[in-house]
Amino acid sequence: MSTAPQVESSNFEAPSWDTICEAHARIASRIHRTPVLTSHSLDVMARAQFFFKCENFQKTGSFKIRGAANAILSLTDAEAGHGIVTPSSGNHGAAVACAAAWRGVPAYIVMPKNAPAVKCRAVESYGGRITFSEPTITSRQETSARVQAATGAILIHPYDNDRIITGQATAAKELLEEIPDIDAVFAPVSGGGLLSGTCLAAKAMRANIRIVGCEPARADDAYRSLATGTLQSLDSSDTIADGLRASLAPRTFRILRRHLDRVLLVSEEEIVAAMRLVWERMKIIIEPSSAVAIAPLLRPGALTELSLPARPDGAPPKLGVIFSGGNVDLSALPF
Amino acid sequence: MSTAPQVESSNFEAPSWDTICEAHARIASRIHRTPVLTSHSLDVMARAQFFFKCENFQKTGSFKIRGAANAILSLTDAEAGHGIVTPSSGNHGAAVACAAAWRGVPAYIVMPKNAPAVKCRAVESYGGRITFSEPTITSRQETSARVQAATGAILIHPYDNDRIITGQATAAKELLEEIPDIDAVFAPVSGGGLLSGTCLAAKAMRANIRIVGCEPARADDAYRSLATGTLQSLDSSDTIADGLRASLAPRTFRILRRHLDRVLLVSEEEIVAAMRLVWERMKIIIEPSSAVAIAPLLRPGALTELSLPARPDGAPPKLGVIFSGGNVDLSALPF
Repeated sequence: MSTAPQVESSNFEAPSWDTICEAHARIASRIHRTPVLTSHSLDVMARAQFFFKCENFQKTGSFKIRGAANAILSLTDAEAGHGIVTPSSGNHGAAVACAAAWRGVPAYIVMPKNAPAVKCRAVESYGGRITFSEPTITSRQETSARVQAATGAILIHPYDNDRIITGQATAAKELLEEIPDIDAVFAPVSGGGLLSGTCLAAKAMRANIRIVGCEPARADDAYRSLATGTLQSLDSSDTIADGLRASLAPRTFRILRRHLDRVLLVSEEEIVAAMRLVWERMKIIIEPSSAVAIAPLLRPGALTELSLPARPDGAPPKLGVIFSGGNVDLSALPF
Repeated sequence: MSTAPQVESSNFEAPSWDTICEAHARIASRIHRTPVLTSHSLDVMARAQFFFKCENFQKTGSFKIRGAANAILSLTDAEAGHGIVTPSSGNHGAAVACAAAWRGVPAYIVMPKNAPAVKCRAVESYGGRITFSEPTITSRQETSARVQAATGAILIHPYDNDRIITGQATAAKELLEEIPDIDAVFAPVSGGGLLSGTCLAAKAMRANIRIVGCEPARADDAYRSLATGTLQSLDSSDTIADGLRASLAPRTFRILRRHLDRVLLVSEEEIVAAMRLVWERMKIIIEPSSAVAIAPLLRPGALTELSLPARPDGAPPKLGVIFSGGNVDLSALPF
């Protein structure tokens, strides 16, 4: 007991494969089955076979609708009756507002007062009701609690929630259903909901697959948490990848400790260069957080350093990359 | 005879449906069969059912490879042996360079000395050899003639060429194969190669379909040519739609006079707003020339003004829109 971190309880049960399949059945008719795209020029550049799961084309512009839909559609009428409250500065807020509208209940989104106007407009376009907090974790939690008390709404955490995690897991499930023999999957990590779900789905479908989390060096709590075995917080998270400024929670940390193979850190310059490269070569809009998942693979020798096992067919490794979203403020591009 | 313009000769034969099918068979294995995308939010906005033929995802980033491949792969070894020469400030040049490389012959691209650096790099990336001319039609023609004389290369006109036109026609052919009951197709017009091909393919496949050309008001030669019945030239073409600065040629003018239903003009502001809307809602990169084809449909009352016949199913009209390309200089965006 003395060396185990406090969050590793012996009775921890990660969500099962069956709950992922249930989540998928619950949300499939509501979400897009997003395309898996390839790119000859990126393949040549990285000496790999890439398969990009394009959640930038997902409803609300990001994978977040998967988890939000699963969580909100799972609630009983009594639970959902007074609405949903959630803290979010971006894509999760829009997703909750959208899924709450499907359910016909109000969505109360607590956003930091410095949230980009474009993100506020997205929440409002789905009928979400915004309450602003100070841009601190304490203020955000206090504001959420106050809204919850005033409205009777149920709180849905953006990632420390099994139904959110199993919803996010359906992106990797669809990717592996389409390309079953992928060697490794790369996904961005922030609070860890997408990455945890990716681990659970992909390893259930293909036991020896590698899962790699990609994180901005300027918001490296997951890297440090997994390196030290203790949940670390972020002092600051001043990264252009505005979707990756949150920290792991106990639930996602436990799943990643058990299943994640590696975390790779990327610089701000690498994020911008990767985003620009994808826009130019693939002609699709991905947000900086999505670019984080491809950025480390564009370094010279990146694949050698990962030492993936050789494929039986001798071909370059098949790499799945989850493009998590495409919500970008076109008025404030970094190029 | 007295009122007929000089270009309308009685022995004019537009390329046949069979030649379009031959072109398609010739190039199909070389090009992408690009996806046809839909957008719920644009449908709601315009009260239409849109089907976007995404040539922005085409090889070389635009539809131009269809015509270039068809023309260059049609040449005999003797004709192609000394290479290809063509004047182009953009996408056609890259397409010719790419198709010439497939054929294993040199491509000499005559570009105005003020062509954007990004377009020059694209031509060079396919192995094209650039000769710069002054940015005038006379200098461009003289330079092309000089390169042709010096190299023995064969000149391929960017659009005043039946094999170019039948190649470009394959984009609309694929669109109609996928969505056979489209009511109208919208495509940008510059030299008229794409629009002529669109007319020929779509009207062969569906006799009562409407074809609408969309043109920047600042480069309105097609509008004026069709309104007056006489081929008009452009005094200037200072439009952000850099792919639409050319003028109709005799061949494309004759086809459009016979088959085109309408030309709609759009302002520079409408082009930029439409491009931004597509980037934001569809998360795909289209160039300004592509945005020209959707811009007039975003005006209030646009559909009423077009007075399309009601659909038998009572649903909103099915509108095909050809997104012609996605080559944008990300360093010089208009927003």
